[in-house]
Amino acid sequence: MNAIDRLIEKIKETNNPTVMGLDPRYDIIPEVVINKYENTLEGISKAILEYNKELIDNVYNIIPAIKPQLAFYEMFGIEGMKAFKETCKYAHEKRMIVIADAKRGDIGSTAKGYSNAYLGHTIIGEEKISAFNYVDFITVNPYLGVDSIKPFVEDCIKYEKGIFVLVKTSNPSSGELQDLKLENGQTVYEHVASLVEEWGKDLRGKYGYSSVSAVVGATYPEQLKELRNKAVHTFFLIPGYGAQGGKAKDIALGFDEQGIGGIVNASRSLMCAYKSELWKDKFKEEEYAKATRAEAIRMRDELNNAIK
Amino acid sequence: MNAIDRLIEKIKETNNPTVMGLDPRYDIIPEVVINKYENTLEGISKAILEYNKELIDNVYNIIPAIKPQLAFYEMFGIEGMKAFKETCKYAHEKRMIVIADAKRGDIGSTAKGYSNAYLGHTIIGEEKISAFNYVDFITVNPYLGVDSIKPFVEDCIKYEKGIFVLVKTSNPSSGELQDLKLENGQTVYEHVASLVEEWGKDLRGKYGYSSVSAVVGATYPEQLKELRNKAVHTFFLIPGYGAQGGKAKDIALGFDEQGIGGIVNASRSLMCAYKSELWKDKFKEEEYAKATRAEAIRMRDELNNAIK
Repeated sequence: MNAIDRLIEKIKETNNPTVMGLDPRYDIIPEVVINKYENTLEGISKAILEYNKELIDNVYNIIPAIKPQLAFYEMFGIEGMKAFKETCKYAHEKRMIVIADAKRGDIGSTAKGYSNAYLGHTIIGEEKISAFNYVDFITVNPYLGVDSIKPFVEDCIKYEKGIFVLVKTSNPSSGELQDLKLENGQTVYEHVASLVEEWGKDLRGKYGYSSVSAVVGATYPEQLKELRNKAVHTFFLIPGYGAQGGKAKDIALGFDEQGIGGIVNASRSLMCAYKSELWKDKFKEEEYAKATRAEAIRMRDELNNAIK
Repeated sequence: MNAIDRLIEKIKETNNPTVMGLDPRYDIIPEVVINKYENTLEGISKAILEYNKELIDNVYNIIPAIKPQLAFYEMFGIEGMKAFKETCKYAHEKRMIVIADAKRGDIGSTAKGYSNAYLGHTIIGEEKISAFNYVDFITVNPYLGVDSIKPFVEDCIKYEKGIFVLVKTSNPSSGELQDLKLENGQTVYEHVASLVEEWGKDLRGKYGYSSVSAVVGATYPEQLKELRNKAVHTFFLIPGYGAQGGKAKDIALGFDEQGIGGIVNASRSLMCAYKSELWKDKFKEEEYAKATRAEAIRMRDELNNAIK
């Protein structure tokens, strides 16, 4: 099945347009987990994997997808990359959709290399070998134009995978490039959004959305609304909810009349629910994954109320 | 010493403004190396490391720097990343400058994660641990604005490292975004070039160039010339020579009156010299590294003739 249809159906099955960002910064992992392991790259990577698995065990039937952020695995080196790979495998086995937040972007054969790594296969002699299996979607950067996108699109068709292209990101300085006004009156991000519609035209699924879709931040609600109206085949991966300031009512602007069209990322607010004002008195530190589940249910209901 | 000064002095010492791109696609590794190892991710990664080391052994005293392209290591998974790390270590021990071609770009704390991974340290408890040591420079993508650059700049100051920001890339579709005309008459890449000058202003070294510098392709000589005149503190990492079509006389436009200001990447033409029309009859396949050395000398002389 087309990757975006797989994602949409999983959202319907769980009735939850949330993706759990798995960004294992050292300081958010509960001490009860950290203390079991040595303070080495290997030790911390084992702690990360235990933590991720425990979170997945507690939410896999109520959250449709995970989004591990590669930076937080690469920073723990080879051992961190092992934790990334194992996390993807574990979530996949639990039937979650896996979005690798890699924001890769490079030219021609190099983009093909990245696509081989995360979406397709590496060919070694006569063998096809997967480097990082179990990834359904990867995020990519459009600065180099279609050369950097096409190899991914080809693998999306071949292997029923998907990509999210950065269009309008959630960070404060996103406008520095993305909001620049072109001489035709469009902004750079509007132009990129129209390219994404074009790049994804052969990958539209049964809900009208394409497996070549876009990242649009919750922190810019006007732009989210405008893009929902213009980029009608583009599904949105929406970061910026919670810690970054995006509200449910803002996010609702990214959804269509059927209540679909986006998936909302929450990283810190889910991973660190056990430390939050709302949940810290209700759960002990060792119940961190239960706090995550409680927060996931609260977030799901809040989003669904705003969207419908 | 400031990273860009280290690079410039190494270029002067070798009298060679070349960086050897180490992009170990499976099909360019000589059979004489491939055949020693199994057709597995582990086997191919060992072959890559042997190949890279042999090339480095044969050029380290005539080429100032290497540029491993992360995609071609990630595509071989965890084992590939080990080969990347070991390659960087080996080149560093041979006193070469290491440029990790990663083109990473992400927001705030995530950019910090990448910077920790490649330029700085990951802090685990009380320990500072390096994930991928021995990297002097990393390439980064500007699409997310200064939020995605600042964490790297801070580490450049702290650890005497450098970055190359994508400005005008060498690929055919680079213009799709980078050449868009803004309403003020500038192109997107010109605007990015002016941001890079600003971002790098605290990192200028004794030759006037900054450790926060730029990628500008050899395939767009007019733009290279124009940027050399405008971005006077920005050193250029220049891809696109050889296989992609950039000529020495074009590249010379990226250099200043003192004959400095850029370093020219060659990947395939150096790595695969043993297969090229020019060298294949002069060297046997097992002498692949000698062919690379011969091509490196030819390229050095060609560049120096054009620049001076």
